[in-house]
Order: sequence, then structure tokens, then C-alpha cells
Amino acid sequence: MDQKQFLEYIALQLRIDSVRSTSAAGSGHPTSCLSAADIISALFFSVMHFDKTDPNNPGNDRFILSKGHAIPVVYAAYKHLGVITDEQLLELRKFDSPLEGHPTPRFPYNEAATGSLGQGLGVGVGFALASRLDGVKNTTYVMLGDGEIAEGSVWEAAEIAAKENLANLVAVVDCNRLGQSEPTLHQHHVDTIANKFAAFGWDTYAVDGHSIDEILAALEAAKENKSPTMIVAKTFKGYGLDDREDKNSFHGKPHKPAELDGAVAALSARFGDAANYSGETNYTPPLPTKTNAKPSPAPLVLDLASDPSKEKFALGEKLATRKAFGHALAALGRVSQEVVVLDGDVKNSTFTQTFQDEFPDRFIQCYIAEQNMVSTATGLTLRGKISFAATFACFLTRAFDQIRMAGIGRVPLRLSGSHCGVSIGEDGPSQMGLEDLGMMRSVPNSVVLYPSDAVSTYKLVGHMANYTEGMSYIRTTRSDTPVLYAHDEQFEIGGSKIVRQSESDSVVIVAAGITLHEALSAHKQLLAQGVNVAVLDCYSIKPLDVNTLRKLASKSKNRVIVVEDHYQAGGLGEAVTHALVNDNVHVEHLFVNNISRSGTPAQLLADAGIDAKSIIDNFNNFREDAHV
Amino acid sequence: MDQKQFLEYIALQLRIDSVRSTSAAGSGHPTSCLSAADIISALFFSVMHFDKTDPNNPGNDRFILSKGHAIPVVYAAYKHLGVITDEQLLELRKFDSPLEGHPTPRFPYNEAATGSLGQGLGVGVGFALASRLDGVKNTTYVMLGDGEIAEGSVWEAAEIAAKENLANLVAVVDCNRLGQSEPTLHQHHVDTIANKFAAFGWDTYAVDGHSIDEILAALEAAKENKSPTMIVAKTFKGYGLDDREDKNSFHGKPHKPAELDGAVAALSARFGDAANYSGETNYTPPLPTKTNAKPSPAPLVLDLASDPSKEKFALGEKLATRKAFGHALAALGRVSQEVVVLDGDVKNSTFTQTFQDEFPDRFIQCYIAEQNMVSTATGLTLRGKISFAATFACFLTRAFDQIRMAGIGRVPLRLSGSHCGVSIGEDGPSQMGLEDLGMMRSVPNSVVLYPSDAVSTYKLVGHMANYTEGMSYIRTTRSDTPVLYAHDEQFEIGGSKIVRQSESDSVVIVAAGITLHEALSAHKQLLAQGVNVAVLDCYSIKPLDVNTLRKLASKSKNRVIVVEDHYQAGGLGEAVTHALVNDNVHVEHLFVNNISRSGTPAQLLADAGIDAKSIIDNFNNFREDAHV
Repeated sequence: MDQKQFLEYIALQLRIDSVRSTSAAGSGHPTSCLSAADIISALFFSVMHFDKTDPNNPGNDRFILSKGHAIPVVYAAYKHLGVITDEQLLELRKFDSPLEGHPTPRFPYNEAATGSLGQGLGVGVGFALASRLDGVKNTTYVMLGDGEIAEGSVWEAAEIAAKENLANLVAVVDCNRLGQSEPTLHQHHVDTIANKFAAFGWDTYAVDGHSIDEILAALEAAKENKSPTMIVAKTFKGYGLDDREDKNSFHGKPHKPAELDGAVAALSARFGDAANYSGETNYTPPLPTKTNAKPSPAPLVLDLASDPSKEKFALGEKLATRKAFGHALAALGRVSQEVVVLDGDVKNSTFTQTFQDEFPDRFIQCYIAEQNMVSTATGLTLRGKISFAATFACFLTRAFDQIRMAGIGRVPLRLSGSHCGVSIGEDGPSQMGLEDLGMMRSVPNSVVLYPSDAVSTYKLVGHMANYTEGMSYIRTTRSDTPVLYAHDEQFEIGGSKIVRQSESDSVVIVAAGITLHEALSAHKQLLAQGVNVAVLDCYSIKPLDVNTLRKLASKSKNRVIVVEDHYQAGGLGEAVTHALVNDNVHVEHLFVNNISRSGTPAQLLADAGIDAKSIIDNFNNFREDAHV
Repeated sequence: MDQKQFLEYIALQLRIDSVRSTSAAGSGHPTSCLSAADIISALFFSVMHFDKTDPNNPGNDRFILSKGHAIPVVYAAYKHLGVITDEQLLELRKFDSPLEGHPTPRFPYNEAATGSLGQGLGVGVGFALASRLDGVKNTTYVMLGDGEIAEGSVWEAAEIAAKENLANLVAVVDCNRLGQSEPTLHQHHVDTIANKFAAFGWDTYAVDGHSIDEILAALEAAKENKSPTMIVAKTFKGYGLDDREDKNSFHGKPHKPAELDGAVAALSARFGDAANYSGETNYTPPLPTKTNAKPSPAPLVLDLASDPSKEKFALGEKLATRKAFGHALAALGRVSQEVVVLDGDVKNSTFTQTFQDEFPDRFIQCYIAEQNMVSTATGLTLRGKISFAATFACFLTRAFDQIRMAGIGRVPLRLSGSHCGVSIGEDGPSQMGLEDLGMMRSVPNSVVLYPSDAVSTYKLVGHMANYTEGMSYIRTTRSDTPVLYAHDEQFEIGGSKIVRQSESDSVVIVAAGITLHEALSAHKQLLAQGVNVAVLDCYSIKPLDVNTLRKLASKSKNRVIVVEDHYQAGGLGEAVTHALVNDNVHVEHLFVNNISRSGTPAQLLADAGIDAKSIIDNFNNFREDAHV
């Protein structure tokens, strides 16, 4: 078999099938597939080693399509590998087909959900790191578009890949000169692009992306490199169709049914030699080297009673939940080799350094680049790691798009945000997480936790490690707060704790995190006045423990005060009012309703109207209004 | 006066005052100030031209401190310029002081709110573009830390600055080798950093950041460059204090009161020559060249009746709200020279191209780099432009941190997100904006608009141009939808429209955007069954028209169905339930409660349970439950 002729034949078939499937779908991006077809042919039909019957084989070389809109050319490759049928291919973008318009895990050969550009390389960094940690000798390939390298996240990933010397990471830019709406920044200046990656520490090649020989030579050379490899491939958008090739305004324009036969004929005519290829067309990729199969990690069990730090968790001791988070991570590290932790140069604030101190080899410094930290955590998680990524809660907003995509990808990403709310004090509003609960609640299947003390934090981190149906998030507090719970107290995702209750409560104060301590102070002061109120620790913001909330409200004169160190939108208060709107319960909501500033934590809690005094004042107004 | 000796003297004073103010505050980042002091001295006391009595003078050279945690050294500079007193300086980080821990506009000399790292350069790009548009011959200086250049947003800004040949933009990296928790990625390899910026198209210099001569020479050379200039200055964190200099673990550690005198004495001893300087110390910066003062733009008035596109807005015609948005932008462009529009290579999807077609000189292509697009829009807005930045709603999540910071900066940023919700169809979930309403509602003082037809869109865009108390956001829809309103209909921020009402409504359906059309369809079908329901177009999601909502609910048997093409968290439904929780109204909420997929818009609206049939089904259950 003449390999070059075979690969050119396959490239032609991929082109034809990309045009056919998008035409059948009536939407999609055929011209973005045509530029990529030769590279895909070379990768899937020559270079990559993988078990085509088992996408989960840990030894497989991996392929991430960062320019997700070109996924039809990859689906076409799977057709020619015999993984899907032609009928299935032509169901592209249909409601019942797993072959979506951009890659999602509904088609199990898609390595990651992409479609928001600039994220694939960071996921690839995670894959490459996972292989290194596991001693797997595979290669992760990432295909990017030239438009998407304008995204800063690409350069964050490039930075870390070089710093980590990820020789097992090979990326290709399909440099087809045209973006969605106009030419890209560097158009066909492939050397300019290559120079940029070289300055970031990559081994680089600029090649003709329609020359099988040049593509193969660069991919072959990459195997010997000691750094990550970037191949900048000069291609033409719509390559093979004279009426569209290298022309603007054909992005996302499939052929009308009446145009389809002409387009297929034009492709066959243009690539006559390939069309006339008569050799073997069945192809099975070389199998990967066997890796030692690892069992899926069983549920991890944390035992606080035997933790070396347990004295710090004694009732009444003061221990910030962020510090408890660090101890819990270290404990997880002891029970599973799969646990890895990612930092954005704030480990001494989030206390991930407690993990690093014990497990430096499983600690990944991502520097101040939160987007890539989240994408890399996504990649590690997809490759079986139990990864926790942590930074200040406010800085996770930097990675909202990456978080959103991990949600679509059904990735059990585990995140922590510290320094939540105005209670951080003097550093001021730029450092305060005040929108994180809403952001994290919006992710489908997410779990959102906001514990008030060290014991509940420790135990909830253990639950996060075992939660696999979606993302989980834990919000931690800067200041030291008293331990409220005994070591044997149990906490659950979706649970809550009634921390104060009597037979005659006039209201239930619903709080979490720092405001629970304000609620307890309010409780104490009201009790001194002879007023009983209930207090609920609503540590599971999502799912919310609506049953307990409802029962407790009904025993507390159907009155609720929700108090949180967060803005209104999407926070605990909106979750509670949404849940109770039809319950005939009166709800008051205290939240941060201004732009905060520098000041002491006590001043800022008072200024925002979420301290103990504000709770008491609100309750008193409330009583007067209700003529109690 | 010996300039060098003077600047060294000033640098010493800035060091002493940075140590004093952070010590008095009991928090802050003195070591991060000490590395920057020589550069700040050179800029503020020699290089920059500005009117120190008027921070708003449009001719001033501008200074943005991207590494916002070093702001005490800048406050110290303002003290030595006579702008603030020593007493005021020592109020740093106090609740009543405008000198916050990170820069905010409460101190009017702060050019932009910073403190979330990596954002200052993008704001500087906006400043430099504004100067070019206005013909102002000033220079924008930006100081970055070496830790923050790991942020991808820095590289997005670098890209655009080079592409736009912003010779009036000069940046300095205070390369002090140490991050918060450990050494930075490149430590003191200033040439590596300079090479990276050179590869991105900048003129670069690597200098000794503690040599006044080298700093001044580079800043002088920058004036002749034709490209943006990056000066990478090798500095030492904690420079001048032997016990802290170039040592890890002193980030954010002020001196205890007992340590203060010793630290001041150590600085004076270390910089003996500067301490002994006996020349003139009063300094007034050279005034800027006068610029033609421009009046603040008066309220802009749009008149749809005279718009060339008005026929497209005829009642019953189909026109996507995204297209109406484009026409409104073009109309604004006609009434004010200050209107500028920013794109992220989706102008043919958001229809900002309608503006570009008429005003190419005021259209800024930011390529696929949404973080920088938002930061640049922030910079343009701060310099008086009425800037609109638009991309797909989902891709604005990429810039949530930049949006958050613009909120803290009280910037009247104007944003639009198109392609909201599952109604986009076949492209699938990666392209669907389903969390944008919650995200934008979380910003203090924001306005969030979601119109259902072309007329209301057009008019609301006009209101956005005139709203200056905070950010405004408009969500637009991909598909063509019928025009519902006459040309003379009025819409207001905080308003709503009752579009269907009778004397005997059994429920009010509250909707916005695409779901309003589903609600109208449900209304029609129910009417055919003899059931009257009210329909409210809740186009102002924030502020919400609670009065109308309440009144209409009370006339509709106190029953509400809210239906939205958005996730639960922070969307219209949570806004409504939060507002009505104490009103004794029964509320049902239909929202997107799954991970969507590819499919037709109708299939996906049905799958999410937010189409007309879902509304009717919900209403019927509701009636049965209520035994109507």
C-alpha cells in the first residue's frame, strides 16, 4: 500500500463526507472541515495508535478537536474506521443522533466538549499531565483553528505545556486564513504564528497543511522533541471546492441539496489521483502499548478522627474553612493516588499548599491563569484523576466559560473558591467572591456547597471526591471561625443542619458560611431578649434541602430570614424564595446590595446589612409589620 | 536640579510611604510597592504630562496600575504631588477613605478598577484607541506585574495593540521575580519575557528597573516607536529592605507597628544619597497639550420613524432582534460620533456589521478574544466613548471577570449577547447562552434587557446609550420573530408590556424574548378553548417591573407562569419568585432544566419544556391541582 496515496484517498473521502453530512443536516461548517481533512487523515489513518473499539483504552493516543465546529470531518474519519455507519453519519445534528453540531460526550469518541474556542489545548495539557502521572506512553494531539489562537486561554495553556516540558503533547493549527466574519489576524503568516509559539517555548514547524508528506514529516519529527510541538499548517478554507476555496463568507454554510452532487463531483475531479486510488481501504490503527489497567477509584472515605490535624477541628476551636479544605485535600491524597490539586499562585490563601506539602508530585502550579487551570483540571478529570482546582472565588469568574463547557461535557470537575464575600475585609471588592454561588448553581448537575465550619468542610470535601454526576464546588471563608460540629457529625450533598431550634420559634434564620455565625450571634442576642428563633445551616446551596427548610419554616410561624454574603442574583436567597414561593411562607432576604469597599470585616458585614445586628433589625421590623 | 538625584529621592520617599501606609493599615503589599518605586518615580515625576489638579483633563497622559495591589506606591506619588495629604495617605484601606486596598474610582485619580490581575493592558488598549479616535496626542502607560502576564487576557491585549499599531501605548512589567506564593514562571529571565512580547509585535526593552537612567532611556525611546512598547524591568520584590528583598513569603505582609521605624531607617540607610538629596522637592508635571474640549454627549434620541430600515420594523414583519440591534447601533452612530462598536469575529451573527458598514472607522475588530474585547470597551467607555461590545451570549461568560471588574469600576459598559437559549437549534449547547441573565443581573447597578421584537429592541438600545449609572446588557435572539409593537410604542428601563389581558384571566404568563412568542401561541390556543390568560412581556429583567407584575397577577387569580429560555439560577424566574414570594401568588416556572443538544429550535424548546405546549400543559396541571 502506498501510504501517501491511501491518505490522500481518505482525505478525499473525509471531504466528501463532510460536505454530505452538513448538507443533509442543513447546517454546519463544511469549509472548516475541508481545510482540516489532510491533517485528520494523517492523524487517524497513520500516526495515531488507538483501539478503535474502545475509546476508553487508557493507552490510546488522544485527539481533541479544539475547533469544534469542524467535527463533521472527525465523524467522517470514524465512519471510515468502521466505528459508525454512513446512515449514522448522515444523522448529523439531528435530535436523536449523538453526532452533535459541536463535540459532546454523547458520542463517546469525542474526547472533550468543545465549541467555545480556545479551550482544547488546556484540556490537552491535562491529558498529557495525566499520562505522565500514570506512566502512559501515549501522545495527545490537539487541533486548533487559526481564529481561535486569539483567545488568551491558548497562550495560558502554551505557557504551562512548555513549563511542564510536555513532549507528549502535539498541537496542529489548521491555519486556513479565514475566521467566521473576516480574515484572521495573521492570515497565512504561518511563520509569525510559529514564532509566537516558539517564544512561548514550543518546538514549532510551519508546513503545507495540504501536503501529506509535510504533515507526516512534522508529526514524525514531533516524536523526538523534548518540548511540546506546535505544527502550524497553512491550509485553505473550503479546500477542493473552487467556488468556495479561500473565499470569505462561506463560514457555516452547508450545500443545499441541489448543490450536493455538483460539490461531490467537483471534489472527485479536483483530487483525481486520490479518487482513482484502488488499493486497500480497510484500515485498523495500530493498537496502543498495553498499560497497567487501573481500577476505577472506589468511594474514598475520610476519617477525621484519625487525621493528624484532628485537634484543630475540636469543638469551639477557631479554624478557617479554607484551612480545613487544605487538610481534607491532604487526607484525600493519602487515601487515593488519583487525587491531584491545581493552584493559580494562591496556595497560601486557599491552603492547597497543605496538600502540596505532602504530595508535591501531584500538585500542579498553573500560575495566575485560571482559565487554563480549569481546562487542565477538566483534562485530568476526563483521564480519571480526582482533581481539585482552587483559587479565590472571585477569580473563578475568569474561567466561567471553561466551567460552562465542563458542565456540557458532564465532567465531574471539583472546584473551590476561597475569600468569599465582603467578609474578607480590607482588600476590597476586587478580591470578594460575590457572584460565585449563582455562577456555579447555573451549571447543569452541579453541586454547590458552602460550609460554615471546619468539620463540615472536611466532610463535604470527601463527598465531592465521590460525586461523579457533575461538577462540585465548595466555597470557603477567609477568616477563622469556630468549629460548630463534633467529629462524628454527618453531612450530605443536599443536606442541611438545624443548629438552633425551640418549641416556639418566631422565625427561622437561614444562613451558610460566614453569615451562619452572624445568625448564631443574632440568635443569642434575641434569646437574651426572650425571643426564640431557629437557625438553619444551609450548607448545601444546590441541591437545596427544601424539605427541612419547609418543615422548619412551618414550625417557625412560617417566617424565614435568609442572610448571605453574596449578591442577590442566583444566590441562596433566590434559591430559597424560588423553592418556597408557593408555600405561604414570608421570606426576608439580606444580601450584599451595594458595591463594597475596603474596611474591616465587621464594618463591611454591617455596611452590606448582613451582620447579626442587621438580622435582628430585620426581624424586629418584620415582627412589627406582622403585628406580632 | 539633578533629575536623577531628584527621582531617586522621590523613589525613596515612595518606598518609605508605601511601608508607612500599609503598616498603618495593618494589611497591604509593601514589597510589591518597593519593586515598583523607581518606575513610578520616573513616570509621575518626569515622563508623564498631566494636570495634577484635574484627573479628567482629556489631554493627560494616563496611567493604569494593572498590578493593583501595589496601589500604595501610587497613592504615595499623589501625596508627593500634593494631591493628597500625609494624613489621607495613612487612612489607606480604612472604611471612610477613598484609598482602597486595590484601585477603585472612589479615588478619582485611579484610572480604572484593578485588582483582578491581567486586565489593565486591555483597558489601556481602550484608552489608546480613544485617544486616536479623538486626535489626542497623549500616551497611556500601563504597569503590569510579572506574575500577571501568565493571564491570557494580557496576550489578547498584546495582540490587538500590535495589530492596531498603538504607538501611544507603553507598558512596563515590574518583573520582581516573586508571585504571591512562589517564584513566577520566568523569574528574572527578562529577555524571555521581552521575546514573547516581541513575537507578538511589540517594541521591547529589557532594563534594570532600579536604574533611573535605564528606565528613563527606555521611556524616552518609546516616544519614537511606531508600535506599542513593552519595557520589561528587572526588579526585586521588597527592594531596599535586606530582610525581605528577593525573599519569598513576604507577599501582602505589612510591617507591624513596632517594626516600622526600623524599616524606614533601613530604607534611608540603604539609599543614603537619595536620603541626603537637598534640592528642590516641589514638582508640578508638565501640563498636557490642550485638546479641543468636547461636550459630554447629550441624551441620544433615536427616531425609528425616520430610520432607513423602518419598513423592516412593520407590524407582523419578521425581523430577528439581533438584526434590529444592528440597525439601532447604526442609528446611534448617526446621532453621535462617540458611538463605537466592538466585535469578536461574529459581526455577521450579532449584526454589528450593520454598524460597521456605515462607520468602519468606529468599528473595532477584537477577533476571538472576548476578555480583551470587554476590557477595551471598558477603556473606551472610561474615556468618554459610548461603546457597545457584542458576541454570542454564551461567549460573554469568557469575560465574566472583566465584566465584574467593570461593575466595581462603575463603568457604563454596554454589552449585547446574541444566540441566547436552546432556540438557536442545531449548533448545540456550546453555542447557547443559558446563564447570561444571571451573570449580568449579578453586576451591581446593571440593567438587563431581553426584548421580544424588533421595535422594542431598537428602542431599548437607545436607552442603553443614555444609561450611565452602571452597565447595561441586551440579550438578542437568533431566529426571525414577528414585530409585535407599533413604531410609536414606548419602552423603558424597568418597564414591561401587558400584551394580552381580559376581564377574566386565569393566569398571567410572564415571558421575554423567544418565550414571549410561545406564550402568545399558548394564549391563542387556550383562547380557542375558551380560557382567558394574560401575557406580560417582561423585557426589563433588571430592574423588574414588580408593580405591573403584582397588579397583573392579582387580576389573574394570583397565578403566574414564568417561562424562559435560560437555566434556573438567577434568571427571570428567580427574579420573579424573589419579588413575589410574600405576595400570596402561586408561581410556576418553566426553564431549561437539562443539558440541551443539537436539534431543531422547535424540538429543543419542547425538550426543555418551554414551548407553547409546555405552557398549556403546565397550566392544565395547575388548574387541576387548584381544582379550578
